[in-house]
Amino acid sequence: MGAVTGHVTDHVTERAPKQDRSRATRQRILAAAVACLAEHGWSGSTVAVVCTRAGVSRGAAQHHFRTREELFTAAIAHMAEQWLTTVRERARALPREGPDRTYAVVDMLVSVYTGPLFRAALHLWVAAGEQEALRPGVTALEAHMGREAHRLAVEFLGADESRPGVRETVQGTLDMARGLGLANLLSDDSARRAGIVGQWSRLLDGVLREAG
Amino acid sequence: MGAVTGHVTDHVTERAPKQDRSRATRQRILAAAVACLAEHGWSGSTVAVVCTRAGVSRGAAQHHFRTREELFTAAIAHMAEQWLTTVRERARALPREGPDRTYAVVDMLVSVYTGPLFRAALHLWVAAGEQEALRPGVTALEAHMGREAHRLAVEFLGADESRPGVRETVQGTLDMARGLGLANLLSDDSARRAGIVGQWSRLLDGVLREAG
Repeated sequence: MGAVTGHVTDHVTERAPKQDRSRATRQRILAAAVACLAEHGWSGSTVAVVCTRAGVSRGAAQHHFRTREELFTAAIAHMAEQWLTTVRERARALPREGPDRTYAVVDMLVSVYTGPLFRAALHLWVAAGEQEALRPGVTALEAHMGREAHRLAVEFLGADESRPGVRETVQGTLDMARGLGLANLLSDDSARRAGIVGQWSRLLDGVLREAG
Repeated sequence: MGAVTGHVTDHVTERAPKQDRSRATRQRILAAAVACLAEHGWSGSTVAVVCTRAGVSRGAAQHHFRTREELFTAAIAHMAEQWLTTVRERARALPREGPDRTYAVVDMLVSVYTGPLFRAALHLWVAAGEQEALRPGVTALEAHMGREAHRLAVEFLGADESRPGVRETVQGTLDMARGLGLANLLSDDSARRAGIVGQWSRLLDGVLREAG
């Protein structure tokens, strides 16, 4: 029995690091895919380029992802989940209430849409407009992320969406944040953006209070 | 003298149709380039694809545009100018004043950013993020179009930008319109968009009146 237990234990300890390694490889490929997308766009982000960047073999990548489309959709989904976690963590440090909180929430959301993850997502988003193979995955992911971002914004702002105009005001704020992300793609738009975030926060805060 | 005059006249009439033909060819190439970009994105929009669509030879295209980048930057610039003309014409039919005018102006601007020209521009914009050869032309064009759209919005809204918050509210509205264009890329977002346009028009109108 001792020998059998020993064998089982060995088997478990052998398998665990193997799973860890496989998982680590997968994460490394996904991170490299997002970085490639942000830097080189869809057309420059081949599986070969990602493998080189991640330091893994083509075979290892194919073990995890059957197609280039699957790899990139998974990469953005992975980063999007990480993003949601990060946003939740950062939200804990925001002012508790009042106009300062509204400003801080808008500023945080806008900073997310002007960062490297949205830049990578934007490349995939636009590529999906004309790449059939990419479209279903990216469309579903975009809808999911849109809903999640909206849900978090409502939660962080303490917005009561049963009151008229509140839901549309929050949605418009997220669309504005995406537009600001676009405006930041080719040039540093931070000075102009700061003024817009301040003014937009005041308008949003007015709607939240008026309704409350 | 009669003969000389006749010769000059002939020369002018001969040259005029030739210039017209050249101009017509140029316009046809530019229109085909924009349509290709909207449908196939940057990577699918080669000079060869555009020539086939426009029904012109490769040589004819090269006579007008030295590089692929020059062709596409010119195509969007050309359509952008047409867009500004169209917007000016449509603005004449809008309600003269009040909240109805504010709504109509926002609705018109948003409709422009959710249409095929912005879709084509979006592909070029995102491609310029990673294509060095494309970047200077597109960056300059984006800055120019941003300024022109802002100037028209201020004019149509009768906005007094010397008053606090007005300029930033108008800018934010245009960024929101661009974000709505992005949201319309992969799926029909018109139902959601209608509610947002209505609500943000009310907020914008409030800022314009409060300031006035």
